[in-house]
Amino acid sequence: MNFSSKLIEEAVNAFASLPGIGKKTALRLVLHLVGQEEEVSENFANALVKMRKGIKECTVCHNISDDEICEVCANKSRDHSLVCVVESIRDVMAIEDTGQFRGIYHVLGGVISPIEGVGPADLNITSLIHRVQKGEIKELIMAISPTIEGDTTIFFISKQLADHQVKVSTIARGISFGGELEYADELTLGRSIVSRLPYRVR
Amino acid sequence: MNFSSKLIEEAVNAFASLPGIGKKTALRLVLHLVGQEEEVSENFANALVKMRKGIKECTVCHNISDDEICEVCANKSRDHSLVCVVESIRDVMAIEDTGQFRGIYHVLGGVISPIEGVGPADLNITSLIHRVQKGEIKELIMAISPTIEGDTTIFFISKQLADHQVKVSTIARGISFGGELEYADELTLGRSIVSRLPYRVR
Repeated sequence: MNFSSKLIEEAVNAFASLPGIGKKTALRLVLHLVGQEEEVSENFANALVKMRKGIKECTVCHNISDDEICEVCANKSRDHSLVCVVESIRDVMAIEDTGQFRGIYHVLGGVISPIEGVGPADLNITSLIHRVQKGEIKELIMAISPTIEGDTTIFFISKQLADHQVKVSTIARGISFGGELEYADELTLGRSIVSRLPYRVR
Repeated sequence: MNFSSKLIEEAVNAFASLPGIGKKTALRLVLHLVGQEEEVSENFANALVKMRKGIKECTVCHNISDDEICEVCANKSRDHSLVCVVESIRDVMAIEDTGQFRGIYHVLGGVISPIEGVGPADLNITSLIHRVQKGEIKELIMAISPTIEGDTTIFFISKQLADHQVKVSTIARGISFGGELEYADELTLGRSIVSRLPYRVR
């Protein structure tokens, strides 16, 4: 693309370095900012820099946080004996959005994947073991993707915790609400029959 | 969406205020920046603020520019007697990308549209007349969208220039290269037959 301005070119390159944003989209965003007051660009830039400088990792659960301890861990009304183990902060947000979980979290920062060179030492597993060793946690819910890597990670963690008095569970797998049986994959459909639930009249 | 962090929320809102970026995409971009060094966010923010503060409007053609006069207008090797009249700076970039035009530009900043409340006074038409009055311009190429508003704008400008020794032309309309006749709309196909060109062996 041919920019008649070096300044525009640099701003477009900045936007285009973000994931999923190409040069054309970047140009559209830059021209939008050109069409707005100077203040708009300044506020935008300030919000980003302030966020990046201020953001911390919760020392308890490794979630992102504005303080040393995140809002969830600091909330005394939540059940601190129930810990949901997830891969990433995005999963924390997704579960929080459901409004169904009143426990706290532990963010692993990924899953064990020998192909990608991610071993147990690269994840926040040691700190999870330490949290369990303190004895306050009664149950760990493994909310981890049902992939080979995810299952390996669950297996590894549960092995490490074999000597501890803690219940390990995984999230239910089965047919999605609104999903149609005929389009479900064989593995999911097969598992959903094996792990069938007693029917309750609500 | 439920953010456990005010800083993240503000940065997401900043991104989501840009056109075509929703909350989910904004969150993805913010989390990308969180995963990078602080420097990355700072450089990104600086490029935007620097661009917005430094960008000017060319005093001759109203294109965006780093200086008082844009690169195109300042280029003496271009044909200053041939002016391409366009709606927006995006059109200038599109035409520059073709590499086929060696004249200079005039950016109107829109087209006459009574429905959207845009009258001739809201566009850079007076400055175009002034440029023509100086007598250096031999031809104006109207590279304006073939809509009712676009045609009205071309008509208005050519009326204003009726007393001047300047040729007014419009860009050719017809079937796109690679386009198939049967899928072309009736108006375009009809016009392309009326405005047929003599065939030349190249």
